Amino acid sequence: MSPGPGAAGPVLTKPLAWIAGIVVAGSLSVISASSLTPWADVPYPDGYRRWVHISSALDQGTTRFAGLHSIYANDKALEGYRTGNFPDGSVLVFDLLESRSEGSAFLGGARRHVDVMRKDRKRFPDTGGWGFEEFRGDSRTDRALDEGARVACYTCHLRQKEKDLIFSTFRD
Amino acid sequence: MSPGPGAAGPVLTKPLAWIAGIVVAGSLSVISASSLTPWADVPYPDGYRRWVHISSALDQGTTRFAGLHSIYANDKALEGYRTGNFPDGSVLVFDLLESRSEGSAFLGGARRHVDVMRKDRKRFPDTGGWGFEEFRGDSRTDRALDEGARVACYTCHLRQKEKDLIFSTFRD
Repeated sequence: MSPGPGAAGPVLTKPLAWIAGIVVAGSLSVISASSLTPWADVPYPDGYRRWVHISSALDQGTTRFAGLHSIYANDKALEGYRTGNFPDGSVLVFDLLESRSEGSAFLGGARRHVDVMRKDRKRFPDTGGWGFEEFRGDSRTDRALDEGARVACYTCHLRQKEKDLIFSTFRD
Repeated sequence: MSPGPGAAGPVLTKPLAWIAGIVVAGSLSVISASSLTPWADVPYPDGYRRWVHISSALDQGTTRFAGLHSIYANDKALEGYRTGNFPDGSVLVFDLLESRSEGSAFLGGARRHVDVMRKDRKRFPDTGGWGFEEFRGDSRTDRALDEGARVACYTCHLRQKEKDLIFSTFRD
């Protein structure tokens, strides 16, 4: 049995532990940008719906990625698709919608979540230079990933190590 | 019974009839841009893969539109999505790929065809101001529509008369 919401004891989730760490660091005046928690390092990708569309697909599986997704890339990430190496500042967005059927077609429904990868070798040296984040639904502020989830993102993307951790490809 | 390919008689397809008309007109030196056949009026939409992505969907039906499609809009067409009236110069592209399954997912395969709508009220007064064209596969020159097919495009799109003949909608 795991402790319920009202259980006593030092039950501290990882994000809370981080916040506590920042508060302590801040009070000692040693906080710096690089010591911020990772989730503050990957901003919401403003305007990504007008970036270049890489690809779309429908996943009818049972994972949290099921639905109709579209992938978007900013200009720097486009360079990465071309050269195989994504420069710092590259941002990729995995925009996942629920799928809804209409006749013989599957169309996009409500937005499930927006996953973001941002390349910054200095900030994210332990995850291949990529930072990972996820925003729930249409929210620009409701972040879904804790440290464990980020490591899971990275571990899965490691399967694409020879492609700078990227699964998708761009074609004209 | 309809005449087979080898049947004798004045069997002339519409495109051939048009070409014959142009040759005659040209020899009389009265040909003008406006007298060109409609298929010359809707050019291949160069660079559309970098235009704004409107939506994607998977159609598992049996029509010629079955597959995974994505719709793209140039800047003027984006204005149309916003205002409900598409200005002249608006171009929309319906990019249809075969769908191929991989595990629980349906991804894009080979390109089936690229359908184009171009708004020009002077050129296409009889079809709601829109010109229609289709390019086969990855070709930029292999045009698929004859006059009858264009009228069929228009007739189907008339169902969206209150939306300037456009089915898709854009959302951020």
